[in-house]
Amino acid sequence: MAQPSTLDQVINLAKRRGFVFQAGEIYGGSRSAWDYGPLGVELKENIKSQWWNTFVRGRGDMVGLDSSIILPRQVWEASGHVETFVDPLSECTACNHRHRYDHLVEAFEDKHGRTPALEELACPNCGTRGKMTEPRTFSGLIRTFLGPVADEEGLHYLRPETAQGMYLNFLNVVNTARKKPPFGMGQIGKAFRNEITPGNFIFRTREFEQMEIQYFVPPAEADQWFDTWVNQAQDWFFGLGLNPENLRQYNVPDGERAHYSSVTIDLEYKFGFTGGDWGELMGIANRGDYDLSNHTKGSGTKMQYFDQATGEHYTPYVIEPSWGLTRSLMAFLVDSYAEDEAPNSKGGVDKRTVLRLDPRLAPVKAAVLPLSKKAELSEPANKLANDLRKRWNVDYDDAGAIGRRYRRHDEIGTPFCVTFDFDSLDDNAVTIRDRDSMAQERVSLDKVESYLSERLGC
Amino acid sequence: MAQPSTLDQVINLAKRRGFVFQAGEIYGGSRSAWDYGPLGVELKENIKSQWWNTFVRGRGDMVGLDSSIILPRQVWEASGHVETFVDPLSECTACNHRHRYDHLVEAFEDKHGRTPALEELACPNCGTRGKMTEPRTFSGLIRTFLGPVADEEGLHYLRPETAQGMYLNFLNVVNTARKKPPFGMGQIGKAFRNEITPGNFIFRTREFEQMEIQYFVPPAEADQWFDTWVNQAQDWFFGLGLNPENLRQYNVPDGERAHYSSVTIDLEYKFGFTGGDWGELMGIANRGDYDLSNHTKGSGTKMQYFDQATGEHYTPYVIEPSWGLTRSLMAFLVDSYAEDEAPNSKGGVDKRTVLRLDPRLAPVKAAVLPLSKKAELSEPANKLANDLRKRWNVDYDDAGAIGRRYRRHDEIGTPFCVTFDFDSLDDNAVTIRDRDSMAQERVSLDKVESYLSERLGC
Repeated sequence: MAQPSTLDQVINLAKRRGFVFQAGEIYGGSRSAWDYGPLGVELKENIKSQWWNTFVRGRGDMVGLDSSIILPRQVWEASGHVETFVDPLSECTACNHRHRYDHLVEAFEDKHGRTPALEELACPNCGTRGKMTEPRTFSGLIRTFLGPVADEEGLHYLRPETAQGMYLNFLNVVNTARKKPPFGMGQIGKAFRNEITPGNFIFRTREFEQMEIQYFVPPAEADQWFDTWVNQAQDWFFGLGLNPENLRQYNVPDGERAHYSSVTIDLEYKFGFTGGDWGELMGIANRGDYDLSNHTKGSGTKMQYFDQATGEHYTPYVIEPSWGLTRSLMAFLVDSYAEDEAPNSKGGVDKRTVLRLDPRLAPVKAAVLPLSKKAELSEPANKLANDLRKRWNVDYDDAGAIGRRYRRHDEIGTPFCVTFDFDSLDDNAVTIRDRDSMAQERVSLDKVESYLSERLGC
Repeated sequence: MAQPSTLDQVINLAKRRGFVFQAGEIYGGSRSAWDYGPLGVELKENIKSQWWNTFVRGRGDMVGLDSSIILPRQVWEASGHVETFVDPLSECTACNHRHRYDHLVEAFEDKHGRTPALEELACPNCGTRGKMTEPRTFSGLIRTFLGPVADEEGLHYLRPETAQGMYLNFLNVVNTARKKPPFGMGQIGKAFRNEITPGNFIFRTREFEQMEIQYFVPPAEADQWFDTWVNQAQDWFFGLGLNPENLRQYNVPDGERAHYSSVTIDLEYKFGFTGGDWGELMGIANRGDYDLSNHTKGSGTKMQYFDQATGEHYTPYVIEPSWGLTRSLMAFLVDSYAEDEAPNSKGGVDKRTVLRLDPRLAPVKAAVLPLSKKAELSEPANKLANDLRKRWNVDYDDAGAIGRRYRRHDEIGTPFCVTFDFDSLDDNAVTIRDRDSMAQERVSLDKVESYLSERLGC
């Protein structure tokens, strides 16, 4: 049997330990969306707060925003999504499965070196040839209806990107936060796309989460800011420990870019998918004045900035670094996954799985492990855990041999295990074990918080 | 002209200063949803993190979860929402407006003391009598379709409560987080209801945000835990400064409770609405085994807990404290709004508006105010602001007289203003002014961070 890939191991670990569950699993499950369990939600929250602190709270040229998911039809008409956010689909009349028409044509071309006639195409599902229909456009927008009647007036779309909410509020933010270009807005939130073939675990789903920045600049400064943001986005991943060898830039060529972009660089991560290692982690796009100009046309409200220094009105260009939040989470999991060896109680070594997550991202910061379940240990150990919970997410684990408990916490990336033993009752100290070095240190109880604080960096 | 109410003042302030904007405003706006601007998103994030730290990270008996917004039809059939989450609507055939039939009947009964015949009802919109249709049920669930075909198979609903995602994952969490009742799950996220009459600012919207706990307990302990959670929920608000006089309990009577609840206590806040001061802020419900039992029936998966100590399988009861996040934000704004007087530069007093928000909730923790725009002050003042931004959301404000800047920051609840003046260049110190007492203190530059840290409590 083939060795499972790292990606398979990570997916298995994520499900087994409660990072990620399939949405609606007890009803047969859905590939449209995933649920984040106790560890997954903590990891995701930690990524969000690192991002927010770095790019929003940490900078004088940035502000945050949280706009709504459901927006009226007109917004998506003006933004170009209703017209261009479409795929051509062809249906097999033998089995009724639908497929991307352009993908069928490309596959045929790759194999035969020429463009196929419609009747030469075979259904990838049932194999029947000559039963594929003429392609029809299929919108990636997810529709819904608000209000008591399901008519045109009530037609709304779930946003396929958080970006538009930031454009719509451009003037509101300029006026209330008194910002002038170059400045940006940051937003974290859900987005929805009616993907035809969701898959690859949490990589491609119909419901997902983004962290997006819209950075508004004078047009002449757009190229320079584009480069700056490519670097800042990369550095953010590296600063949180992502291995630079697993990240690469892809300069998206003409014809493949989104309709609003004149230049796009994708940051791709080496996820290790079957049939192609790399996948898009995030993209940085120069959207020019495309969106603000279209909303000026669509709404009749002039989406411009008035520069008091020059007396000029102008439409800023937008540089958009757009992170996949759930993809970032997946990348941090894959990147931190390791297998090595740890000494066991018999003087030998055991294999261990360890998530070498940056301590700031680790879902559980420390685990308090009483050496026995007896009240004389469990009471003070519980008290210690509760004290530490005032600052961090801390686990209390009293089940099984200490070695097994270490393994359990290595596997979920807990940076520190704090063992409360019988000596603790005498010396008022605990043994703190480091996840990566496995080194142990005796630390007095009143120093535990500062010891962890220095090493966790949060 | 009548004095504007506190609520009107708060709404005005919220729009003017960038707490809350109308969604899609440049396209005529929507009452379905609101966008949170730079200050609103910070306030909302601070409420979320206080809640999460108190109820999830801070407790050994709680874990977090983040489940998906879109769930398949079957979930909402089993949960009872498809059948019971409905209102009776009647249409006026003269003007085509739709209204709640039961509300029309109630209004008639209040006025005339008897039940009306259909032809006696008048349309509240156009006033025509005898043109209202027989009522038809209208679902509060928002429908959408996933996948390439808009058919029954693709029918999904946007969740009207985050709760169901926690029930669906009950076994996943018990197994992976090794929790046993009494224990709970906490979740923060958006929910959607097709309200017929959204209104009262952010109080009733179709897209909104909740903070929900599902606390699973042995059935015999349900009543006791219900009382405990009512108190803990109240205490959370009081601990963040909410005035107890503005909060009251409402024991929801038979016939008015949600279909799943045997006992519900609403915490109502005195928002100061026209025609009725009080509005529901949150509810605590005893949902019994209603949801887990129905999902057992609906999915065929036994949603029970196996108690190893007694060897028994049982279905836990659920106590659900459910917070409106956006309503909590509105309550904290209304509650902290005050008008008083502040000394002006001419030896007199000016009226001032001040948000007396708990410092942990305040969107901006400190504002650095250089006394002049000259580089000799702006450079070190900017440096100070950037240093403080490593920990907090900090504003830099150099526009206008210092008194006006104080007013601007009082109005958004900034706890501390840090004035950098020409003396600062000599004594390496700044003047820190307290929002509430307006007292000023000279603090040396290297002590500013610890000074703020002690007083902000975060």
